[in-house]
Amino acid sequence: MNEKHHVVNNGGGFGGLYAAKALKHAPVKITLLDRHNYHLFQPLLYQVATGFLSPADVASPLRTELNKQKNVQVIKAEVMDFDVESHKVILKDEKIAYDTLILAAGASHSYFGHSEWGEFAPGLKSIIDALDFQRRIFLAFENAERTAEVDSRQMWLTFVIVGGGPTGVEVAGALGETVQHTICKDYRSIDPARVRILLLEAGDRLLPAYPPGLSLKSARALEKLGVTVRTGNLVTKVERDAVEVRIGEKLENIAAGTILWAAGVLASPLGHKLKDQTHTELDKAGRLIVEPDLTLPGHPEIFVIGDLANFSHQTGKPLPGLVQPAMQEGAYAAHLIQQRLEGGTLPAFHYHDKGMLATIGRTSAIADLGTIKFAGFFAKLIWIFVHLWYITIFENKTLVFMQWAWNFLTMSQRARIIIGTTALPSSSLPLGPQSTTSNLEEVGRVSYPTS
Amino acid sequence: MNEKHHVVNNGGGFGGLYAAKALKHAPVKITLLDRHNYHLFQPLLYQVATGFLSPADVASPLRTELNKQKNVQVIKAEVMDFDVESHKVILKDEKIAYDTLILAAGASHSYFGHSEWGEFAPGLKSIIDALDFQRRIFLAFENAERTAEVDSRQMWLTFVIVGGGPTGVEVAGALGETVQHTICKDYRSIDPARVRILLLEAGDRLLPAYPPGLSLKSARALEKLGVTVRTGNLVTKVERDAVEVRIGEKLENIAAGTILWAAGVLASPLGHKLKDQTHTELDKAGRLIVEPDLTLPGHPEIFVIGDLANFSHQTGKPLPGLVQPAMQEGAYAAHLIQQRLEGGTLPAFHYHDKGMLATIGRTSAIADLGTIKFAGFFAKLIWIFVHLWYITIFENKTLVFMQWAWNFLTMSQRARIIIGTTALPSSSLPLGPQSTTSNLEEVGRVSYPTS
Repeated sequence: MNEKHHVVNNGGGFGGLYAAKALKHAPVKITLLDRHNYHLFQPLLYQVATGFLSPADVASPLRTELNKQKNVQVIKAEVMDFDVESHKVILKDEKIAYDTLILAAGASHSYFGHSEWGEFAPGLKSIIDALDFQRRIFLAFENAERTAEVDSRQMWLTFVIVGGGPTGVEVAGALGETVQHTICKDYRSIDPARVRILLLEAGDRLLPAYPPGLSLKSARALEKLGVTVRTGNLVTKVERDAVEVRIGEKLENIAAGTILWAAGVLASPLGHKLKDQTHTELDKAGRLIVEPDLTLPGHPEIFVIGDLANFSHQTGKPLPGLVQPAMQEGAYAAHLIQQRLEGGTLPAFHYHDKGMLATIGRTSAIADLGTIKFAGFFAKLIWIFVHLWYITIFENKTLVFMQWAWNFLTMSQRARIIIGTTALPSSSLPLGPQSTTSNLEEVGRVSYPTS
Repeated sequence: MNEKHHVVNNGGGFGGLYAAKALKHAPVKITLLDRHNYHLFQPLLYQVATGFLSPADVASPLRTELNKQKNVQVIKAEVMDFDVESHKVILKDEKIAYDTLILAAGASHSYFGHSEWGEFAPGLKSIIDALDFQRRIFLAFENAERTAEVDSRQMWLTFVIVGGGPTGVEVAGALGETVQHTICKDYRSIDPARVRILLLEAGDRLLPAYPPGLSLKSARALEKLGVTVRTGNLVTKVERDAVEVRIGEKLENIAAGTILWAAGVLASPLGHKLKDQTHTELDKAGRLIVEPDLTLPGHPEIFVIGDLANFSHQTGKPLPGLVQPAMQEGAYAAHLIQQRLEGGTLPAFHYHDKGMLATIGRTSAIADLGTIKFAGFFAKLIWIFVHLWYITIFENKTLVFMQWAWNFLTMSQRARIIIGTTALPSSSLPLGPQSTTSNLEEVGRVSYPTS
């Protein structure tokens, strides 16, 4: 057996992947587990959902990302549970022992206890979700094109997006542009003026994490793209082709052929598994409340980072579920592991907020860079720059950059092809029809390079 | 109602789309029906199957293809049957009357009466098929990487491709290159020398439609890419992870984790519907035997073109199921319809064979241009040129050209991301959860532009 310190990263998102990369020169061996074989550039997922990009434009195989890093082994597998006592991660068909665990299992969307709404209002967290979104959007236009009956046609031309956070704002903006640029050209019998895009937010303004002035500017930019922004609209029921909202004391029923969910976030259910074994507290969103060094109380060998972590030591509020905190947390965990191996330690994690950006359609965005807050085309330029910068954590930088810039600049909606049926299975991806592996030690021995 | 002659095209493949485009300036109205919302550039589908291209690189929305052509209406719908007597096409929820029908419904793969083999050996005709192919190929490598047991690992490293026609040859070549370029880099514990790619052909040579010399050259080029070519191997049974072949008198069982079907072709089942109503003969592959002018006997208003047609009047043998014949047939049908409207007619259809090309890996191809037959890099250049030329029937030429050329030249296997589960539903795509349209006349009235 290899004597090296074994770091197991669960999750190949921004946190987990960045932690693995930051350990490139550390005297450790790393096992990166993910149930998908790719890293997903989640901030651009809404562009897949609206047909501007293909899945492969926003995802990159984890093996390719890490194929030059000799101390890491990628395994496509889903973690089912942990054995904290004996330091093991439990997969479907084997157990993997760790010296340090970095849990970066992320979050999914939450229907606030109404999981039955999922059938009628898909969320947007995975590629499958995005393809389902896309399929529903363009099938709605197909249906509207063929439907003569006025009410039914108006239903197909009504799109409800639930949730005024960054995802809801970005999807609504992209949909507005789709109608302006594509629908009027491709669908002869659809009057673009009849298309209704409703963005419903329960709170009193969009983008509550941003300053109020920017919320207002983003609402105005969306209105220009034909989006109706409705704040103070709490969704109380979702059915097939209809949403019920409460506005103050009144209830209103909205007939809509397409309902998209961009509201609640719920951390990975793996949080519960660790909660029970480590007696760590979970917050309401299912996040594990971590120590100042991102570990679990009494378990310095378990780091929790990204959307699954609630780190409130800095401001009293948890850090937002964005790329920046996840990456910085991943880097911190990697750095602390290295320090410990050399007998040292690190001061508590400190998040450097580099600002927040959200895009609204093709030419506008809003930016909150702490001291400066602004909206419009200049903000969009910054948004482009930042996204291009971060997408270069992909190994094949030039290619992805070119692809992405090309697609982005031409804003072609080439990827607008409808594949498959509505109900794509989004849960676990089995390893294959006949997985014959069951012995961890054997696999461990074979899998690692001898260096 | 519009008084114009109504041409209904069933099928947005090369034949149907080209016929619609050729009628651009004709005094007709055209309805193009397809169960997908896109035109598929089928000759490049094998590149999606091997992770080199994304679905959107080889498909383009039909509405976009035709959005500048005012006399055509695109409807995403599946044709269920015909009423030849009353000149109607029957959809799930409506009937559409035609003056002339152009049937270009294409073909699917055939398991020679063993449809149960489909579960274990997917074919390659649609985008869903290609994604399923791709998923199986890369899951096999994931499984091999994790499997220590020798036999089981060898099973996962064995790929069987059934059928030595153009599809089989192209898939085998692309797989060979995948192993040489990607697998050795991304999978630490897989020895590329252990990977077996078997191309099984029942006949005595690959590419039977080409001259024997080129068959030999293509076999040699494949061997260089690590493909084992086995002619005279008739598949007699397909099971999960195993293929049984008969070689002369002997039976052999081959354990293979991935089995890909590139053998039989079976014309669309719509052929049977027309056969019964028009008393037209079907050939063994399910194709309708057409008259010299591509119509059905006694039914000059019904054209059958592309893979669903058996046109044997020129050489005594049916034309091959390739892009060239389909496009030329589409153009002929369009031309004859125009002539008839002016009171004229046309001589019998005549196919101009411009030659055949097949590609073998990245830098080699074989060409049969009638008088000259050759193989190698020059043939590959011609292959590239011809494919670039034909892909420009896409409306957004520049974009597709750039995208495709970029992907092709860099040969990046970016699209190697595994989405969904093995069993993707490949059959009918329903129009939506609640299709409320049922009245044809209403829809017909609303759908057409008034010009």
